[in-house]
Amino acid sequence: MKQLNIGLVGYGFMGRTHSNAFLQAPRFFDLPYVPVLKAVAARNEERVKKFAENWGYESHTSDWRDLVNRKDVDLIDIASPNDTHHEIAIAAARAGKMVMCEKPLGRNAIEAKAMTESIEQAGVPNTVWYNYRRVPAVTMIKELLDEGRFGRIFHYRAKFLQDWTISKDLPQGGEGLWRLDVSVAGSGVTGDLLAHNIDTALWLNGPIVEVTAMTETFIKERTHNLTGKVEPVGIDDASAFLARFENGSLATFEATRYARGHKALYTLEINGEHASAFWDLHDLHRIQYFDHRDEGRVRGWRNVHVTDGDQPYMKHWWVPGLQIGYEHTFTHQFADFVEAAARGRALPPTFRDGLATDRVTDAVLKSAKSRQWEKVEC
Amino acid sequence: MKQLNIGLVGYGFMGRTHSNAFLQAPRFFDLPYVPVLKAVAARNEERVKKFAENWGYESHTSDWRDLVNRKDVDLIDIASPNDTHHEIAIAAARAGKMVMCEKPLGRNAIEAKAMTESIEQAGVPNTVWYNYRRVPAVTMIKELLDEGRFGRIFHYRAKFLQDWTISKDLPQGGEGLWRLDVSVAGSGVTGDLLAHNIDTALWLNGPIVEVTAMTETFIKERTHNLTGKVEPVGIDDASAFLARFENGSLATFEATRYARGHKALYTLEINGEHASAFWDLHDLHRIQYFDHRDEGRVRGWRNVHVTDGDQPYMKHWWVPGLQIGYEHTFTHQFADFVEAAARGRALPPTFRDGLATDRVTDAVLKSAKSRQWEKVEC
Amino acid sequence: MKQLNIGLVGYGFMGRTHSNAFLQAPRFFDLPYVPVLKAVAARNEERVKKFAENWGYESHTSDWRDLVNRKDVDLIDIASPNDTHHEIAIAAARAGKMVMCEKPLGRNAIEAKAMTESIEQAGVPNTVWYNYRRVPAVTMIKELLDEGRFGRIFHYRAKFLQDWTISKDLPQGGEGLWRLDVSVAGSGVTGDLLAHNIDTALWLNGPIVEVTAMTETFIKERTHNLTGKVEPVGIDDASAFLARFENGSLATFEATRYARGHKALYTLEINGEHASAFWDLHDLHRIQYFDHRDEGRVRGWRNVHVTDGDQPYMKHWWVPGLQIGYEHTFTHQFADFVEAAARGRALPPTFRDGLATDRVTDAVLKSAKSRQWEKVEC
Amino acid sequence: MKQLNIGLVGYGFMGRTHSNAFLQAPRFFDLPYVPVLKAVAARNEERVKKFAENWGYESHTSDWRDLVNRKDVDLIDIASPNDTHHEIAIAAARAGKMVMCEKPLGRNAIEAKAMTESIEQAGVPNTVWYNYRRVPAVTMIKELLDEGRFGRIFHYRAKFLQDWTISKDLPQGGEGLWRLDVSVAGSGVTGDLLAHNIDTALWLNGPIVEVTAMTETFIKERTHNLTGKVEPVGIDDASAFLARFENGSLATFEATRYARGHKALYTLEINGEHASAFWDLHDLHRIQYFDHRDEGRVRGWRNVHVTDGDQPYMKHWWVPGLQIGYEHTFTHQFADFVEAAARGRALPPTFRDGLATDRVTDAVLKSAKSRQWEKVEC
Repeated sequence: MKQLNIGLVGYGFMGRTHSNAFLQAPRFFDLPYVPVLKAVAARNEERVKKFAENWGYESHTSDWRDLVNRKDVDLIDIASPNDTHHEIAIAAARAGKMVMCEKPLGRNAIEAKAMTESIEQAGVPNTVWYNYRRVPAVTMIKELLDEGRFGRIFHYRAKFLQDWTISKDLPQGGEGLWRLDVSVAGSGVTGDLLAHNIDTALWLNGPIVEVTAMTETFIKERTHNLTGKVEPVGIDDASAFLARFENGSLATFEATRYARGHKALYTLEINGEHASAFWDLHDLHRIQYFDHRDEGRVRGWRNVHVTDGDQPYMKHWWVPGLQIGYEHTFTHQFADFVEAAARGRALPPTFRDGLATDRVTDAVLKSAKSRQWEKVEC
Repeated sequence: MKQLNIGLVGYGFMGRTHSNAFLQAPRFFDLPYVPVLKAVAARNEERVKKFAENWGYESHTSDWRDLVNRKDVDLIDIASPNDTHHEIAIAAARAGKMVMCEKPLGRNAIEAKAMTESIEQAGVPNTVWYNYRRVPAVTMIKELLDEGRFGRIFHYRAKFLQDWTISKDLPQGGEGLWRLDVSVAGSGVTGDLLAHNIDTALWLNGPIVEVTAMTETFIKERTHNLTGKVEPVGIDDASAFLARFENGSLATFEATRYARGHKALYTLEINGEHASAFWDLHDLHRIQYFDHRDEGRVRGWRNVHVTDGDQPYMKHWWVPGLQIGYEHTFTHQFADFVEAAARGRALPPTFRDGLATDRVTDAVLKSAKSRQWEKVEC
Repeated sequence: MKQLNIGLVGYGFMGRTHSNAFLQAPRFFDLPYVPVLKAVAARNEERVKKFAENWGYESHTSDWRDLVNRKDVDLIDIASPNDTHHEIAIAAARAGKMVMCEKPLGRNAIEAKAMTESIEQAGVPNTVWYNYRRVPAVTMIKELLDEGRFGRIFHYRAKFLQDWTISKDLPQGGEGLWRLDVSVAGSGVTGDLLAHNIDTALWLNGPIVEVTAMTETFIKERTHNLTGKVEPVGIDDASAFLARFENGSLATFEATRYARGHKALYTLEINGEHASAFWDLHDLHRIQYFDHRDEGRVRGWRNVHVTDGDQPYMKHWWVPGLQIGYEHTFTHQFADFVEAAARGRALPPTFRDGLATDRVTDAVLKSAKSRQWEKVEC
Repeated sequence: MKQLNIGLVGYGFMGRTHSNAFLQAPRFFDLPYVPVLKAVAARNEERVKKFAENWGYESHTSDWRDLVNRKDVDLIDIASPNDTHHEIAIAAARAGKMVMCEKPLGRNAIEAKAMTESIEQAGVPNTVWYNYRRVPAVTMIKELLDEGRFGRIFHYRAKFLQDWTISKDLPQGGEGLWRLDVSVAGSGVTGDLLAHNIDTALWLNGPIVEVTAMTETFIKERTHNLTGKVEPVGIDDASAFLARFENGSLATFEATRYARGHKALYTLEINGEHASAFWDLHDLHRIQYFDHRDEGRVRGWRNVHVTDGDQPYMKHWWVPGLQIGYEHTFTHQFADFVEAAARGRALPPTFRDGLATDRVTDAVLKSAKSRQWEKVEC
């Protein structure tokens, strides 16, 4: 069977989730290619060496350009900080490589647009790692919507609540903390967390037309981890917006790292004329599903434990009642990507889908400054 | 409209729940009689006077026989400790009064049998205050069962878990603590808590054929509140049993006052071939209902908030989503009793139903001693 | 003991909850006055007569002015539709009556301001029936906040979700449906539902400075129940806003009658530096409480069943684990009102508090039109 | 680094979970040996070949004796049906191999005793795959107990509820259905499900002294999948027992495959003098923890999401809030096994622990027949 030679850029949190997916996918899915962990690139030589050994990459380098230049690399997977996505993706596309890119696609829609144009010009398979689309429960909500069960949609709600930056003593910037450095990350929770909510929302509920937003930076100054200086905090600690979708529904979105008690509480709810659904990342295997067409007296939110073989992706895993976890969303996306790539196709969320999300986050940040409703570019 | 003159015996916890029911029922239900709080009897003169004033009883006495002897009392309501039920109920029945009696009917089936024979001989309307049958959610489970939705029943489970007697310093006996004095109460959690579970179970799932049980007294000695002496504890602190029902289903029952963290956690679950239901007193307005005939992919436990007008009793109260509470179960039972009484009928759970429960608790206590399976008398 | 003679205006849903409170409060609370149900007024003579009989009012009338003019009425309780609050309250205040008024205080802040000025000029005890402050769980959150357990507040969230107007066939206006008639109600969910959320929020988290809002009317035309004509719908079916509080915290609020599956889902959450709390009307006896100062490994949201004697109001009711319901919030407010009235004081939420809420709802409706952030008048 | 050469027997459900563990453990844990998937044995040649290819085993065979005889195999992992455990484990022990054996250890305590004696005589590292001990939440309950937080234990409860055999049309025996064939499985839910509950219970709460039990076979005859004949069903479909532990606590245990609506609902609860804990396999990342020493007013069951780095095993995986799944329990056990093996030790649950569980299940089955309390052999 043909090999799919992978060159990974980055060895952080996402480098691990992707590598695990490359290894686990062929055991559980019948893939058209054999994934080969060809090489990994990252700036710190010692660490990248250790990472390569741990995960079984055949080689490693401190310069991502080496990967792009190698003829024996088919796929460039970008898992490095946000400020590197743009340059790597465009170089990889020009070199004719398939590209998988961590989210958000760019630090803003300008970067994302250039990346999307490059990748489409190259015509190579591509995807953005908005992994939550492939939680089986979330995928199932999409299926239920596509089947027309909900009728006219009235409301959409999404939140992503964390609490890990409340301490004033937390520094910003550098290894593991670049998400707090606006020059690297592009924005705070808007790009890091809301982007996830938005990608899923656009997928489930269609385009967003306009938004009104507010953002806040609760802690105004932090010590920078690399410089050791106390510097202004450039990121948004919290971000919330109201939105109107093209289908006429109304929405509220909120993300924060200051919601005491919540670790990674991504929730979504959609209310239609006939049915509603709710999902919560902390109980990722369940959906709460309400169908008004159920007999009135015993009508209620159905607590559906999405672990059966007829529910998305689950036939590949264990038996009913037994859960999979966070990492499997990446395994699913990689398996789907390989499948699509074998047919020469991009896998949604494609770069163009990633651009759509960046346009919404741009509108959110713009509205937070302008104090006006802002249209989302399309 | 004809009056229903009530004579209450007892002014404790149950005296209050009953009195509230007498006052509240005519405002929310269209009763055939006007309840009149004619008199209350209890041993402590000062307290019974204060109680009468607070609740608007026309008169009070320290001797319950006065109530039985009054011609202008139609109904004797027994809310005094367990050791008094037997004598009062029989006297009241002989005097031709309607009788409502707190649970358990007797301290044992011998007492209960005599009471039942008296009341049936007198032919007067009667009921036992197993109030949990009239939680709207529980009533609805009964309706769903009667409609044949569950198919063959395989399993029944019931628990009543409390934690209020864990402290060694808690005395036994006397005002407010007679439930810990075996001579007054008859037994411990078996008669106090399991009796509730059993009454509901017999109602929902039919007769119990046989049981194997264990009981335990964790704290062996306590100071008696009245005598001041340290005395052996005669009651069972915990009681559990396995049972087989006449319909072939298997059951587990458990009650205790040593389950740290649970205040009054009465739960029940019934599993049938086609459907299952679960209820929990701490969320008394919900049932969890599972119907296997639901479409597979979106099948799940339905969380039904039993507050709609087409659900039992709820049309008498507020609007969907708004809850009633514990006390309303008594109001419902009283309203139903008046309705039945106007037609000359006893209201289930009748004395005979109360006797059936006492026979099960007797078998449980007997099995705990004999270490054998024991048949339930019928 | 001195009597408190009550004159009630209105016999609808709220007329019932108030009447029940008048009857039940003296049985469970040690009140300084004896409430007397003196008279009830409502336009429909036949119905008001029947209502008076059912609830035991001594008299009834079809003209509320009769109540205001009676010397033997001490308290005017306004439970009639929103468009009547203004005139009745001012007349009652001028007549020197105590006044309890259903929420929202006015159809808008102009009405509410006039009412507040009248009542303060008269110096009579007054309150607005924002009953949810007196759910024991909600009252306890207030206590915990006042004790300083939360530290700096970062976030507040509130929702009130219903689904009862989704059908296009539902008419607007008239008996039981005046909430859909903008001329009577003043607004839709903004005044009916969000007003509840806002009152609680102002109480728990202090003043709101500014808002940006959106409203929507999903069904544009409905048959008017009284005229029989198809007419434009004037109310807002859904209303959501972002807010900034004076204390620097950020908030999201949302109310709708188009959230399929939710009957009366009022939820609130507050996130502070050290602690967070969550409450949900459908499980009204619980708070979810998170305290970051708990030991890390066993830190979690505490599911607190607010039914113990040391928790607000509960010593007046049953025993731990046993719930009260929706109606008790009115009983609590009435008991507190009588207590305050005996000391010549207004009871929060006073008319001035009601005005504060109307100013927020006015800002919300204004922002929904202006598409701007709007300051809340103070 | 030294290799650990693995020979797996069986390619079913458990063959997959074990193989995944062998592959995933070295990526996430710092193991003292490098696991090598040396060979896999199973009866069906075609299938074992395919399995070997999929999982990357270097070789395969249709005779497990080949593995035992190979010098280059260090560890025999038994994942074949219950009736094969006995012979393979003893042969492997005699050949000086390390042994990992699926649960239950034997079909009964006689087999298990012989296996335990063999393995102890050989002195080789061994373990039984009672994987649920290594759900992070369950491991944490053990830690909390060992820290003495619970005080005297009063109650233990465990259930394992499934519903997959309710249909009368389900055949028994053969590939994927050997669990329904008593000659292969040894028993029904007692050995398959209750054994899990018992292993965890013995670990958390110490030895069980005596039991009284009931079992039931609801469907008396089924078509045998291999013979095509309708044959009596020999297994127990449901099994429940009451137990007394050596520490004086009382317990209820129940397992069934006839609890409509439950897929794999393993729950456990332990109630101590000071604290209680509850766990549920369907929400495997949470424990409900109650500590009576918490301040009374805000005391409640703490919903602890066990995903932080200071909670068992979680520092090896992702970040707080992100879940792992069922399969990881095997990965944990394998990682712990390799660690123990490097130090020459057996890993609990050892064969001796597996024997202890088989002695309890034997007592349960004996009691169900004798209708007596039965002592557990020790």
